[in-house]
Amino acid sequence: MNIQTDTTHDPKATSWVESANAAESEFPIQNLPFGAFRRRGSDEAARIGVAIGDQILDLQRALQQGGWSSAIQGLLQPLAQGDLNAHMARSAEERLALRHALFEALLSGSEQEAALRGALVAQADAEMLLPCRITDYTDFYTGIHHATTVGKLFRPDNPLLPNYKWVPIGYHGRSSSIVVSGTGIRRPWGQRKAPDAAEPTFAPSQRLDYELELGAFVAGGNALGEPIAMEKAEQHLFGLTLLNDWSARDIQPWEYQPLGPFLAKNFGTTISPWIVTMEALAPFRTAFERPAEDPQPLPYLDSAQNRTQGAFNIELEVWIETAAMRAAGLPAERLSQSNFRDAYWTWAQMLTHHASGGCNMNPGDLLGSGTQSGPRPEQGGSLLELSLGGKQAIRLANGETRTFLQDGDRLMLRGRAVAEGARSIGFGECSAEMLPAR
Amino acid sequence: MNIQTDTTHDPKATSWVESANAAESEFPIQNLPFGAFRRRGSDEAARIGVAIGDQILDLQRALQQGGWSSAIQGLLQPLAQGDLNAHMARSAEERLALRHALFEALLSGSEQEAALRGALVAQADAEMLLPCRITDYTDFYTGIHHATTVGKLFRPDNPLLPNYKWVPIGYHGRSSSIVVSGTGIRRPWGQRKAPDAAEPTFAPSQRLDYELELGAFVAGGNALGEPIAMEKAEQHLFGLTLLNDWSARDIQPWEYQPLGPFLAKNFGTTISPWIVTMEALAPFRTAFERPAEDPQPLPYLDSAQNRTQGAFNIELEVWIETAAMRAAGLPAERLSQSNFRDAYWTWAQMLTHHASGGCNMNPGDLLGSGTQSGPRPEQGGSLLELSLGGKQAIRLANGETRTFLQDGDRLMLRGRAVAEGARSIGFGECSAEMLPAR
Repeated sequence: MNIQTDTTHDPKATSWVESANAAESEFPIQNLPFGAFRRRGSDEAARIGVAIGDQILDLQRALQQGGWSSAIQGLLQPLAQGDLNAHMARSAEERLALRHALFEALLSGSEQEAALRGALVAQADAEMLLPCRITDYTDFYTGIHHATTVGKLFRPDNPLLPNYKWVPIGYHGRSSSIVVSGTGIRRPWGQRKAPDAAEPTFAPSQRLDYELELGAFVAGGNALGEPIAMEKAEQHLFGLTLLNDWSARDIQPWEYQPLGPFLAKNFGTTISPWIVTMEALAPFRTAFERPAEDPQPLPYLDSAQNRTQGAFNIELEVWIETAAMRAAGLPAERLSQSNFRDAYWTWAQMLTHHASGGCNMNPGDLLGSGTQSGPRPEQGGSLLELSLGGKQAIRLANGETRTFLQDGDRLMLRGRAVAEGARSIGFGECSAEMLPAR
Repeated sequence: MNIQTDTTHDPKATSWVESANAAESEFPIQNLPFGAFRRRGSDEAARIGVAIGDQILDLQRALQQGGWSSAIQGLLQPLAQGDLNAHMARSAEERLALRHALFEALLSGSEQEAALRGALVAQADAEMLLPCRITDYTDFYTGIHHATTVGKLFRPDNPLLPNYKWVPIGYHGRSSSIVVSGTGIRRPWGQRKAPDAAEPTFAPSQRLDYELELGAFVAGGNALGEPIAMEKAEQHLFGLTLLNDWSARDIQPWEYQPLGPFLAKNFGTTISPWIVTMEALAPFRTAFERPAEDPQPLPYLDSAQNRTQGAFNIELEVWIETAAMRAAGLPAERLSQSNFRDAYWTWAQMLTHHASGGCNMNPGDLLGSGTQSGPRPEQGGSLLELSLGGKQAIRLANGETRTFLQDGDRLMLRGRAVAEGARSIGFGECSAEMLPAR
């Protein structure tokens, strides 16, 4: 579908859900992200909903209350049963058809307004859950400014490893410890060894950090042994979330050779509850460009579509609220900001590379982007970068300082897709508080 | 339960399933491993069964055909519905109670013989499937002889990294590409770069290898943030399988820094279909001993039980059958053998370490042991070791040579638990044929 003729991106479109029309709303009718929820305080099964303004359209009730064509009823069926993975597995055409139906139903003046008013749940009354079953999670390393800054801390003369500009570096993560925004993250114990110590010790991590990332959910998968060509990769992507890849910086250096990060990462990964679909993100696509002096991607990681619109203009931010700030009623403070446009590899390249040896992807698999730091020092996507490896504390407005996270700190990631002439859309919040070690 | 008084280990016990009593049977009545199957050629849902001689006791039909106490009927219920994960989640006492009931039912002279004869399916008539849902897979690196030999190829002066004797090194693997024995493994494409080449190329792997491992399935899990103490770790382990961690030795060196192996490993991992339970393996436990000059495990990785019986005496073998051998009607040839007793860390230590930072484990999670090579050069658990990094070809009895695997090669792992005075038990076969690159 041509973006110019896709009415769901019309910046003038408004919804009968009034709160969606506020300029500051992250969930205008042009967004329509999917999430899973239940009524706060209940223990009912997960329901799938679509965020609109400060409300959620409950798709189970929306299906019951009618007004849909039989084709759309069929598409809503698995969603009404709480199964977002089944919807992710549908074809790109089917997913786009449902988007158009939801857009029309929520549009100002829609005949379905009366029927669907009863299918709204206030976000304030909902407890958000993980949006889908995530059976495999892979974290990439596409933030070249992050890779360079962190590399410099360890190898001043050779910050970026020779494979970085050729291989979309990634590693398998832990899927069981992925949690939804709002879940507390407990400070992990782990083995650490100071360079001058004779032996390691086992103790709570003292260098706890966040990492500002985006996550992409896989739509339709591929069979084992069958790769995904770049030309088809976009059809295999469902949508994006914010992702915080919590990291224990003192556990990692001791454990990670030769097989990579393990306990330094698997004590928790936080994602935002709403999946912003690739269809919603279409207006924010931008050219994927490499500096002329850099190697161009090998043919299996290259396509015309990727060159012209493989990247995304998504502004990212990290905010902190310490326990002292909370006690004093002070607002959260922004630690840094960057833009996903600066990623060195696109989602299509990450997915194609992942499947290039035949690895089978499944609907609901999650890919992390790696830490998204901007080109300037103050744009670091982690405290490791902002504090120069813990050597230089950051001073907050209330006088507190931080090299790494302290118990009670609440971290919040935010994201917003922006483009000239388009209604900007947001990702909601990806937040969690650090709990003391057990 | 005291092993000496556990009748299910009585080496004189025999079954009314005659084939189980043959000396060479891997599945005598003392074993009783769990697996999933369907009738060959059918597309029926997976059924859970227990191997006995050359037969399978179909637990769905076994439940229907009666003769069980009501408590055992309750334990059989989820198994009869094809859900081994639900059984894995049960307490150690419940799992032991079911083992005793199955043992009594299959014992020579059992009153249940007449009822259960109709619940047997010949293994020859069954297609084996993955035994359970595996949502997370972690591969460890406990083969110190493997780590030393491979380390020597890359770092002659410093083969073993300083963390090896302190940390049970492991990394997250890919769960989607775990397949059951008999599934063909397709040679992967991937990026490789020769040390003297200016740029990498993307082509089929030319250094395809196997790795001889055991796998352990997790029984009951733990909540996120709550570790598993060494004293309780054994209760959280369900049983063992054979595991072949196929590896592309030319993809790995170019991709693995700094985040570990990725596409070099995720094109396929083969497991044997039967899970031999920890209860069945009790007689084969042995002391876990460290050389006196080595560091002793840190307290969180130590327990009295682990010291006296944390290790297992399991003989392991790798066999090869090339396409030429098959065509000439020649038997498979053994490439090497080792013993899991030589592993540097125990399953209890691997599991406790994995959860020590709070990572949550789930029933059905799979842990790989890492390549199990013996202390002598001919005991290498991979071709990388046996061919000295591809420098010295192995000569097979029919005159063929191998540095790495060729298309059409079929690799088979075998395992057998042995102990003085105990009926030895086997693991069945973990085999797969290499398919040509796509």
